[in-house]
Amino acid sequence: MLFHVRMDVNIPRGLPAEEAKAIIAKEKAYSQALQQSGKWRHIWRIAGEYANFSIFDVKDNAELHEVLSGLPLFPFMKIEVKPLLRHPSSIREDDT
Amino acid sequence: MLFHVRMDVNIPRGLPAEEAKAIIAKEKAYSQALQQSGKWRHIWRIAGEYANFSIFDVKDNAELHEVLSGLPLFPFMKIEVKPLLRHPSSIREDDT
Amino acid sequence: MLFHVRMDVNIPRGLPAEEAKAIIAKEKAYSQALQQSGKWRHIWRIAGEYANFSIFDVKDNAELHEVLSGLPLFPFMKIEVKPLLRHPSSIREDDT
Amino acid sequence: MLFHVRMDVNIPRGLPAEEAKAIIAKEKAYSQALQQSGKWRHIWRIAGEYANFSIFDVKDNAELHEVLSGLPLFPFMKIEVKPLLRHPSSIREDDT
Amino acid sequence: MLFHVRMDVNIPRGLPAEEAKAIIAKEKAYSQALQQSGKWRHIWRIAGEYANFSIFDVKDNAELHEVLSGLPLFPFMKIEVKPLLRHPSSIREDDT
Amino acid sequence: MLFHVRMDVNIPRGLPAEEAKAIIAKEKAYSQALQQSGKWRHIWRIAGEYANFSIFDVKDNAELHEVLSGLPLFPFMKIEVKPLLRHPSSIREDDT
Amino acid sequence: MLFHVRMDVNIPRGLPAEEAKAIIAKEKAYSQALQQSGKWRHIWRIAGEYANFSIFDVKDNAELHEVLSGLPLFPFMKIEVKPLLRHPSSIREDDT
Amino acid sequence: MLFHVRMDVNIPRGLPAEEAKAIIAKEKAYSQALQQSGKWRHIWRIAGEYANFSIFDVKDNAELHEVLSGLPLFPFMKIEVKPLLRHPSSIREDDT
Amino acid sequence: MLFHVRMDVNIPRGLPAEEAKAIIAKEKAYSQALQQSGKWRHIWRIAGEYANFSIFDVKDNAELHEVLSGLPLFPFMKIEVKPLLRHPSSIREDDT
Amino acid sequence: MLFHVRMDVNIPRGLPAEEAKAIIAKEKAYSQALQQSGKWRHIWRIAGEYANFSIFDVKDNAELHEVLSGLPLFPFMKIEVKPLLRHPSSIREDDT
Repeated sequence: MLFHVRMDVNIPRGLPAEEAKAIIAKEKAYSQALQQSGKWRHIWRIAGEYANFSIFDVKDNAELHEVLSGLPLFPFMKIEVKPLLRHPSSIREDDT
Repeated sequence: MLFHVRMDVNIPRGLPAEEAKAIIAKEKAYSQALQQSGKWRHIWRIAGEYANFSIFDVKDNAELHEVLSGLPLFPFMKIEVKPLLRHPSSIREDDT
Repeated sequence: MLFHVRMDVNIPRGLPAEEAKAIIAKEKAYSQALQQSGKWRHIWRIAGEYANFSIFDVKDNAELHEVLSGLPLFPFMKIEVKPLLRHPSSIREDDT
Repeated sequence: MLFHVRMDVNIPRGLPAEEAKAIIAKEKAYSQALQQSGKWRHIWRIAGEYANFSIFDVKDNAELHEVLSGLPLFPFMKIEVKPLLRHPSSIREDDT
Repeated sequence: MLFHVRMDVNIPRGLPAEEAKAIIAKEKAYSQALQQSGKWRHIWRIAGEYANFSIFDVKDNAELHEVLSGLPLFPFMKIEVKPLLRHPSSIREDDT
Repeated sequence: MLFHVRMDVNIPRGLPAEEAKAIIAKEKAYSQALQQSGKWRHIWRIAGEYANFSIFDVKDNAELHEVLSGLPLFPFMKIEVKPLLRHPSSIREDDT
Repeated sequence: MLFHVRMDVNIPRGLPAEEAKAIIAKEKAYSQALQQSGKWRHIWRIAGEYANFSIFDVKDNAELHEVLSGLPLFPFMKIEVKPLLRHPSSIREDDT
Repeated sequence: MLFHVRMDVNIPRGLPAEEAKAIIAKEKAYSQALQQSGKWRHIWRIAGEYANFSIFDVKDNAELHEVLSGLPLFPFMKIEVKPLLRHPSSIREDDT
Repeated sequence: MLFHVRMDVNIPRGLPAEEAKAIIAKEKAYSQALQQSGKWRHIWRIAGEYANFSIFDVKDNAELHEVLSGLPLFPFMKIEVKPLLRHPSSIREDDT
Repeated sequence: MLFHVRMDVNIPRGLPAEEAKAIIAKEKAYSQALQQSGKWRHIWRIAGEYANFSIFDVKDNAELHEVLSGLPLFPFMKIEVKPLLRHPSSIREDDT
């Protein structure tokens, strides 16, 4: 089941640079593992913003929340979720 | 070059049903031709709304506008465009 | 899988009274059949507004959209969907 | 009498981890006691957000405020209340 | 139980003047009967706007909705309700 | 002359508890003195929020500002003022 | 007593040109009479918009509403009022 | 050339009281010198808010920015500018 | 003196196609004459929208309003103006 | 390819004055180098705000993001990007 997610990152100035760097590295590893597994289908940077649009393919709402709330940057993110479904005009079998 | 587009459709009540039906059929054909060509990469319905999120892969801003303003439903749409680029954490070669 | 839905109804003044009455009657029957089936768990009127908050229990996003877009009043509604999941503090087994 | 409540939690970064943990534990106990009593009918997590939708069944506005302002996390919450009533299409006797 | 209500009136241009006049006269009578009964405690015009702030004193949410949805101008109003309660600093016994 | 005022209080976390307590006590005394004098006609708590709706009866805009800017909690408040007048449907002589 | 008023005019397309012209002429006469009397102190056009900022000097809220609701263009305006008072830094005796 | 400016002041809690007092005194002197020169035509306090509406009469956009960015409170202000011109209904020669 | 202007065009469905075509042709001629004169420095289409960003170079606010309110499409536009000035980092002599 | 960018700068009060000054100097040099190269076509200050409108001419979305995210003030900016294209009424060959 597909979900559209917009994530806006806002790392607070008070966070020590080392700590920030470590969290960002963990975030990357976490994201790539989920991409490998097929659960995080797409991630695109939005030009000019510290933000991304992503597409998730998960079993249900609970798994989506588990994945998102586990993000190392979750405490510094504003997240907006929209449930998706196959568009009647789509020609792509797996955009379902 | 990739663009994220949200389209909200609002067909006016005054439009005769036959005319609306014909426009929607043209819209579908138009969309599928662009999907075949690879320019309209993804289209997903947003649950509960007469709206979609789409990903376009076009040469430049001018081609994007040409494609969008050519939509048969364009006069009845609110469209919002965000330019995308490869996310540094992406593992997918073609999400660029 | 649970979804929270807010529906705001706006019946256009131009709609003949008879037609409006017929649509509202169909809406009620449609809603009650879905409530009987267990897919539309709750529906509450919001005081002072022609609007409701509802809880749906459906298989997936596609079924949710099928149910919502089938509403007789769908063309006159603004709908907002939020995916839900079990809250860690909940004591109620079926609020999942 | 039923009320729909949305709560958004925002724990400030400056709050010591131990203190935060203690408040969250108290919040859970407080919520579960009210659920046991029947005053806090439902609580659902909103996917991807540190937020919930809840349904309260209380005697009057004053009791609702007493319950909400007594939440251990109240100082860190944004709360929005909507009074509810039985929907004319509802088939559920206790959604009143 | 007290409720704060803001009503914004927007009479459509297409409504025949006679019809509008009749509805406004009915609205006035309806409002004054409810004021006489004590259920509509206050009504004030907001300077420069076709709008009012009102205070209702009703048994519960259901009665509030019954009163508001029965307004002759209800189809032409945007209504926003906020439940009220006694303020801890209030010295006025009946502002409860 | 009547004014409708909404006040939202937001006491900063950094304010020492003793100081906050003292300011809140002063606020209560200040409010009650103005209520006694008849200048602060009504104050109601909004359910679930650290906010109130109030009605002031003052000589002019300048006196309203003097009263509001003298609030001990003024530095921690967001205030919104709307000038009121007698509603043509009002039956209450002093809602003027 | 001074008030700041923003007026946005939106003349509906359906209004016959002759009627619109007549209303606009009446509006001008009405405005100029009030300017002569000193009650409408200033009126400025906002560049690029069919809108103005105005300053009124009236006895009280009721007179302000009488003046504004009497505007020939009132049914086609969105109006926003802010009560003003002498600024402590003002050097101008009559900006009170 | 006239400009309408709204200024909202928000002095941060961390600013030492002495420093704040000194800045506010400088602000007053700065404002009054500009009023004397005729460049700052009007300044009014908005009732209940730490904000003002002002009218500036300057040579061009550049001078307006020089004046505004030179305000001692500029770092603590949110400023919104609207270019003004003579209204066709104005009877006042210098509101140009 | 430079101004940044955003124009959003919304041609009403009721406008006969011939009339719309004629207005759009006049708009183009009007715009190109002003571009030739140097008063309308730039005009860019915003991708996916029936809207443009423009830069005007005019004598003062009054001339800007004269130019904008003279647009053949003015009755069908939402216009937002921002006064510009030379940026301290600019290297371009005529961006003043 | 052209992009319209609005940048709002908000330098946090906690940033030491020396550090701020150094960053602003770097920002200026960075901006001017990009202007020299032709990639940053225009930059204008918005009157009364610590903000600018800019026009960029870059190869693609990725280059735009590289340029923007490399801004020394990037961590203190809110940035909004709109893709542009030649307007059909434009007479200027290079506004493409």
